[in-house]
Parts: sequence; C-alpha cells; structure tokens
Amino acid sequence: MSKPIRTDIAWSTPSTITVKGFDLCKDILGTLSLGDIAFLELTDRLPTTRESVVFNAIAVTLVEHGLTPSAIAARMTYTGAPEAMQAAVAGLCGLGSVFVGSMETAARMLQEAIPDPSKKGDLDQLAHDIVERFHGRKQAVPGIGHHMHKPVDPRAPRLFQIAAENGFDGPYIKLMKQVAREAEAVYGKSLPINATGAIAAIASELKLPWRIVRGIGVMARAIGLVGHIREEMREPMAREIKTRAEEEATAHLRGKA
Amino acid sequence: MSKPIRTDIAWSTPSTITVKGFDLCKDILGTLSLGDIAFLELTDRLPTTRESVVFNAIAVTLVEHGLTPSAIAARMTYTGAPEAMQAAVAGLCGLGSVFVGSMETAARMLQEAIPDPSKKGDLDQLAHDIVERFHGRKQAVPGIGHHMHKPVDPRAPRLFQIAAENGFDGPYIKLMKQVAREAEAVYGKSLPINATGAIAAIASELKLPWRIVRGIGVMARAIGLVGHIREEMREPMAREIKTRAEEEATAHLRGKA
Amino acid sequence: MSKPIRTDIAWSTPSTITVKGFDLCKDILGTLSLGDIAFLELTDRLPTTRESVVFNAIAVTLVEHGLTPSAIAARMTYTGAPEAMQAAVAGLCGLGSVFVGSMETAARMLQEAIPDPSKKGDLDQLAHDIVERFHGRKQAVPGIGHHMHKPVDPRAPRLFQIAAENGFDGPYIKLMKQVAREAEAVYGKSLPINATGAIAAIASELKLPWRIVRGIGVMARAIGLVGHIREEMREPMAREIKTRAEEEATAHLRGKA
Amino acid sequence: MSKPIRTDIAWSTPSTITVKGFDLCKDILGTLSLGDIAFLELTDRLPTTRESVVFNAIAVTLVEHGLTPSAIAARMTYTGAPEAMQAAVAGLCGLGSVFVGSMETAARMLQEAIPDPSKKGDLDQLAHDIVERFHGRKQAVPGIGHHMHKPVDPRAPRLFQIAAENGFDGPYIKLMKQVAREAEAVYGKSLPINATGAIAAIASELKLPWRIVRGIGVMARAIGLVGHIREEMREPMAREIKTRAEEEATAHLRGKA
Repeated sequence: MSKPIRTDIAWSTPSTITVKGFDLCKDILGTLSLGDIAFLELTDRLPTTRESVVFNAIAVTLVEHGLTPSAIAARMTYTGAPEAMQAAVAGLCGLGSVFVGSMETAARMLQEAIPDPSKKGDLDQLAHDIVERFHGRKQAVPGIGHHMHKPVDPRAPRLFQIAAENGFDGPYIKLMKQVAREAEAVYGKSLPINATGAIAAIASELKLPWRIVRGIGVMARAIGLVGHIREEMREPMAREIKTRAEEEATAHLRGKA
Repeated sequence: MSKPIRTDIAWSTPSTITVKGFDLCKDILGTLSLGDIAFLELTDRLPTTRESVVFNAIAVTLVEHGLTPSAIAARMTYTGAPEAMQAAVAGLCGLGSVFVGSMETAARMLQEAIPDPSKKGDLDQLAHDIVERFHGRKQAVPGIGHHMHKPVDPRAPRLFQIAAENGFDGPYIKLMKQVAREAEAVYGKSLPINATGAIAAIASELKLPWRIVRGIGVMARAIGLVGHIREEMREPMAREIKTRAEEEATAHLRGKA
Repeated sequence: MSKPIRTDIAWSTPSTITVKGFDLCKDILGTLSLGDIAFLELTDRLPTTRESVVFNAIAVTLVEHGLTPSAIAARMTYTGAPEAMQAAVAGLCGLGSVFVGSMETAARMLQEAIPDPSKKGDLDQLAHDIVERFHGRKQAVPGIGHHMHKPVDPRAPRLFQIAAENGFDGPYIKLMKQVAREAEAVYGKSLPINATGAIAAIASELKLPWRIVRGIGVMARAIGLVGHIREEMREPMAREIKTRAEEEATAHLRGKA
Repeated sequence: MSKPIRTDIAWSTPSTITVKGFDLCKDILGTLSLGDIAFLELTDRLPTTRESVVFNAIAVTLVEHGLTPSAIAARMTYTGAPEAMQAAVAGLCGLGSVFVGSMETAARMLQEAIPDPSKKGDLDQLAHDIVERFHGRKQAVPGIGHHMHKPVDPRAPRLFQIAAENGFDGPYIKLMKQVAREAEAVYGKSLPINATGAIAAIASELKLPWRIVRGIGVMARAIGLVGHIREEMREPMAREIKTRAEEEATAHLRGKA
C-alpha cells in the first residue's frame, strides 16, 4: 500500500555528484555562481545571462536590511548558543507574513490576476479591480508604500531598470505599476511601489510561481544573517540590548519589590 | 552604565540604502551577484574576480547534497506548516557538528597550525603533529575520508584545480594535502580529502576565519532547502516517509495491543 | 519619541525572583506543578483545583503523538547537531496549520460564534450556520473527523468527561457537539469530535483566547520532542530513515547514471 | 541491508492511544499532570509522589527567567510571523551552552565524578579534583556563582530543601555543595550554588543522565516562551526594541550619509 517516493534534485555515485541533471564537478563548479544555482533550484534549468542578471539583482536586494527583527533574533540565539551558529540563522523563522512574506502576497495578487502572461487582458481594469478589492476590505495593497522610503523606494525603479535592460518588462511589471497609480488615486496618498512589489513583479516575469517567491527572500536573508552573526562575534550587541530591555521593561515591577 | 551598540552592516535614509559602505542601488544591484554579496558579508570587501570564482565554487558545492537529514527535516516541517515556509528552512538547525560543522573543525585545525600564512613553517612536521594528535585521541582527522566517495571525493580535486587556476595554492591547501597523505600512512587506509576538507583549506586561503566557515555551508544550504521545499510542494514525500516509519517502528507495539 | 516597553511576567532582585506576582521560592516551588505554571503563563492567575485537572488533561493529551512529522524533524536535526538538542526541539516549527494549528481554527470558530459565553444564543442555529459556511466553501469543519480514530476519537469523550466532572460543560462544549452532529448530517458521514475539537472547546470554557490556544500544543509537544530525542540518543532511527528515503527516491536517477 | 527501526514511545489503534505502555484515556488523562508525563518521557516510568514534587520543582524553576535572549528572539520572530507562533517558540534555539546548557555541564561534571551513586567514594577528594581541574584550565566551575543573585541564589537552598523533604539528599547534592565550598576557597570569592547547579545535582539524584538534563530546561522554557508571545500579542515590545537598536547602532553611519 505504500506509495513510491522520488526526488529529482540530486544523486551520487562513488565518483560523481549530479544536481538537477548537471554533473557538479564538470558542469557546475567553476562555471555557475551561487545565484545561478539558486535559480536552478527554483526552476530546474539554468538561467540565461539576462535572467541571471535580473534574478541576482532581486536576490541581492533581499540579503541585507540591517538590524531587522530576524537579525536581532539571530544575534540573541547566537549569544546563548555560540556553538550552534546554524540555529541562530534559524532567526529566519521570522520571515513571515509581515515582512518578507509580503512578496508572496504581492506575487499571488499579480499571478492570480494574470494566470497566463501571454493573455494579459485589460491591465487598467485588472488594476482597478485589485485596488477596489483591497480597499473594500480596508486592507493595504501589497507591494506599495513604505514607512521610510518616501516618496520613492529607490530599489523599485532600479530593479525595474535592470529588468527592462535585460528584456523583462512584461504584463506583471506593467500591472504592478498600474496598481500603484490606481491605489494612489483611491487611497489619496503617495503609494510608490516598494522593493517587495518590484521583486514580486519581476519574479512573476521570471515565471516563478507565487508559492515559492518567499523562498528567494529566505535564501537571501540566510546570507545576511550569517553576516550579522559574524558581526555579533566581533562586536556583540545582543546582551546589551537584552539588559536594557529587561531593565526598562521591569522597572515598574522592581520598584514595587 | 549602558554600553553603546553599533553595527556597520547597513543603514538607510529615505532615498538611499547602504550596505557595507556601498550604495545598494548604484553600486550593488545589477553589478554584484548573490555569491559576491555573500563574500562581502563575510569579509567586508568585494571579491576580486579570481576570489569570486573560487568563493562561488565552494559555496555552490554546499548548496545541494540531496535528501540529507536537514532536507527531510525541512520537508517534515513544511508538511505541518505549509503557511510558514521559512520555518521549514529552519531545518538548517541540523547543520551542526556532524555534517556541515566538520568544515569548521577542519578550518580550525589548519588555521591553528598556521596562524599566519606568511610564516608557514614546516608543513610536513605540522601534518605529522596534527595526525598524531587525532590518532592518539582515537578521533577521525577532519576533512578526510568519505563513506561513499571512494577512493576519491571528486569535489576536492576539482575545487583545488579551480583554486589553483585562480592563484590560490598556498600553505593551507598544501597542509591539507599533506595531512591526508600522513593520515593514510598512519591509519593504514584510503583517506582522500573530502569536500569539507577542500573547502576548509580554500576558505582559509581566502582568509576566512574558521569561526565563520560553517556560515558558508549554512547560507548555501538555505538555498538548497528552498529547492527541497519546492519539490515537496509538487511531489510530496514527507507524509509517506512518516507513515512508513511509524508503521514499521511501532509494529512490535501494535502487535501487542 | 521612543515608546516605553514593559513586561509583567517576571523580575528579580539579588535575593528574590518573582513570576507574575508570586515569589518563586516561597509561593511556587514545591507548590505549583509544571501544568499549573503553564496555566499561570496563559492566564495570569493560578488555576483552581478543578481548572488544574482540566487544563493538565488537555495539555497532557498534546504531549505525545508518536512518530509525527515534527518528531522526525527533531530526530533528523539531532542527528546532524547532537551538541544542540534545543535546536532539535525546534522541530516544533512544524506545529502549523495542518496538525496542532487546527486547535486554533476550531477555537476561533467557537469563540467567534459565542463572543460572550454568558450570552450563548441559539446553539442549534449557530451550529447550523457554522457547518453551512464551511460546507459552502468545500472546506472541512475544524475539530471533527479523524483518519484513524473511527468511529470515535476516544480522547474526546474522555476529555469531555473530565471537564464535566470538574464543572466545565458550558456553551462552547455544547456548540462543538452540535457542530459535529450537524456536520454528520450535512456531509453524510461519520464525523466525531476529535482531540483537537475537544481541546478547542474545553480551552474556550477555560476562557483561553483562541489566538493562544495553539500555544498549549506547542508547549506540550516540546516535552514530547525531548522524549523523542532521548530515544534517538539510545536507539537512533534518523540515519536509517534518511538512507532508505534517499535510496528509494533517487533509484530512478542512479539507474540512469 | 536495511536496519530495522523501532520506537517504544507511543502507538495507536482506532480505539486506543498508548503512551509508554499506559492507555492514554484510561490511565493518563485526568490522572497524570503535565510534569508527570514529562517525567515519564524522560525515564519511561511514572514518578513516585515524592519524585513528582521534586521533578516539578526543578522544571518549574526553568519555565520563566523574564526577558532572556530567547524570549526576545521569540518576540522578534512573532513580530514577523504572527501566523506561525510555533516558529517563535523556536526561539528556544538559543538555550545552548551559555545559559540553560550549563545545567548539562554541571550534571556531567557530577555524574562523571560519581558514575555509580551507590559507590560514592571520597566526596572531599572528588570536589578537590574537580575544582583543581577547572581552576587549572582557568575555567569557571559549572553550577556555582551568579552575576545577580548574591551572596546566595535563593533557588538553590529552596530546591535542596524540597529535595531533602522528599528523601533526595544523596551523593550528587553533597558533592555539588562540597564543590562550591572548595571553589570559594580556591577562587577566593563568593561562589554559591546557583539554580543550574542545584538542578543538575537534583536531576542526578533522580537518575536522569546528564545528556538529557538540558531537555528539562528546553521543555520548561517552551512554556515560558508561549507566555512571552502571549504578552507580545497584547503589549508588544519587539518593534520598539528593534527601532531603538537600529537607530542607535547606525547613528554613526547615518551621520556620514
């Protein structure tokens, strides 16, 4: 009654390692970059040169956002378990719906509006419907607006420029831009496309299904968290942050004691 | 009494994002690949072209090892929490002392033997002392031997070739090779350098401190785990593995019930 | 501009530790059990004797479900990082929407139907509306049905019995039972209340908000996962499961190699 | 060639669930508390009444230590992924060598000194040898000294009192006390037994092997972390901590920008 299980990712013989059909030693090492193999993991094929430039750009954007909650979580874990750096990188558990997960929401919005990019439909109407739906539910439209980067999130135009220079300027990018214009009119405030929205649109142009888009952020941020752990090793801040938080947050209680 | 805290990794203004002193939009996006920014996170500087080739090669080697324990852990977690893919990537918690952590042990062995690569000492004597120390404690020497890849782990010569072609063939690589030769003589069996040993030696040539070397594996494997989650989405195996394990492992108990 | 932060959980002086207003050494140690302090963490007050019996029963139910995906994930992580047992317990990352999280969904369903248990409304109508809503969306109703425990999940009647014996038999439990009856009629099959549904109803009677109900499962399963790690230390299975999965899942690929 | 796998923890039939040989519904629910089932997980048997009091006391001690690094990590993760509370509890990844893991080190120290508690040897000599060994390596002796609880960690005498009242006052507790006395003489400062040391000694009296002792802390702290997540839901502090840390830590960089 048992069902067969199979994987098509990698396998080995004593003298060879194969990854997605490519010989690791002959075809991959020395030839493919880390970003290219990430693309291979996400699509089962090698990127073209232009796809590689665009994919690397969106992945690189997600590596480092400074002292984010996940970076602080990683540093806190490292402080308690310096012998298990990998467990600190599990600080990426916080890359959920609020921050990185918003890419997934935006990509889903675009891909559900345009299931087949070769039949793109009326983008103005699609944008109108999307904004109306979110506005009606009193929700924020994913992929637009930023608490700090105003009036423009500089990453969005730069990523769109890189995409366009490499031949990616299709319906998902156009729809994302139209959604932002429509939303600014309906919500009555500046709502520029943010990095998340640009990445969601470009990932959709690269034909990455929305369900895996968050994965670009997760893999990229793992790189960034290793960088934060490295800094924490040399110039620690976790204990100081903890001490201050504890002192302030319990002051009203210790005063009573 | 509070101590100042500081980070030098990234900061932002409304119109700019800076990572390690580089303007994200102007200097990094479209220019640096994912592997290059990983190098930047680990060293605070950009790699040269040759360093980039070598660093990408060692990182790429670590992305995908097939159905490892961490891949199975990631798939199990995904099965229970498909809404939180990032938590599944926390399967990298298993990249500890047994598998990926052995890179750290090997890099430490090399860097403690040669604290300053410009003063390399007598490599034969160093290799002799290292092997004697591990052999005396009845421990395996890190970085050599592989349960499957015999008589040669094909990744090691290929990585050394890439390193040499790019100018990296210094004392750490030489010492690693001498350690393997010495160990084969002392332990009386084939003990070729494995991928871990090659990476530890090359990372040492790249001046990466041993304490951070495991981080290359952690960041790389995060990429691979996203690939496994993607496959699990489309062709799941976690539940089947679980069902079979449960049935077999409790058969002796259910027989009694 | 900074906002104050505060916690009311615990604080210390050189000679005292206080948890939720109780002196740890004088009031808690030797007096409160692990289950009681868990209740205190969830409600800010001590349980009555009857509440303690009921709460311990639902928590105990969740400790151990055998070789679940999270147990296998924990064992896989332990295999790779035996020096970091705590990271293996992070196998609880898989306690998401599919398994333990279903308690949260069921509790939410009940508490949204009866926001104030002192004004319970028409339970038959509420049950009718709930089942109609899930059936209309072609979704399963949370808290009922079980793939193995048929026709009855024995934990549900036992938990309800313990609750009733201790004075807990209010509107949430009644509604859960009526939902099951209604669903059996509408879906046309046996749909007994499962452990999840019983726990959701009883937790609601204990006035635990639905947002925290999953937490009972998470804390309980952490205990169970330590038990699995202990067994893995003495009678390991993770490597064998991994080896078998890898061999079978890549057989079609190695045949080609 | 495959090896059999087995578990003796739990199994089910359609109408029964069995945990460690006990019928969940008949023998456990309504009878055993959460602490007792934790003892069962750790020892394969039910505690006596006295063992239950002592075990619950040490477990309860470990539930809540206020705003620890792991609590802050959990809150940070919750902020980013409120839909995946279980991933926030993975903040327990930080319960490593520095904090909770010190229990393991202390228990190991005691159990290696007294492998068989029925043949306890000369405790003065054992304590002398232990302190000399750590002092010679310029290491701290595990289980003694506390940065805040001076001159006495009030948990230690209370836990020893509870243990003694229940018949546990054997060689491990005596050795731990003698180690503290010896260490105070050798290191020339006040080094009272801390909670960690008391728990390590009492766990050893309960015959828990040192390798699993950390697990008591991990399971207990999972309970506490759920409490912190509950507070974070209602009175969040993670974002404020993050904002302040980011502002201060990057001030020197933004000044340059």
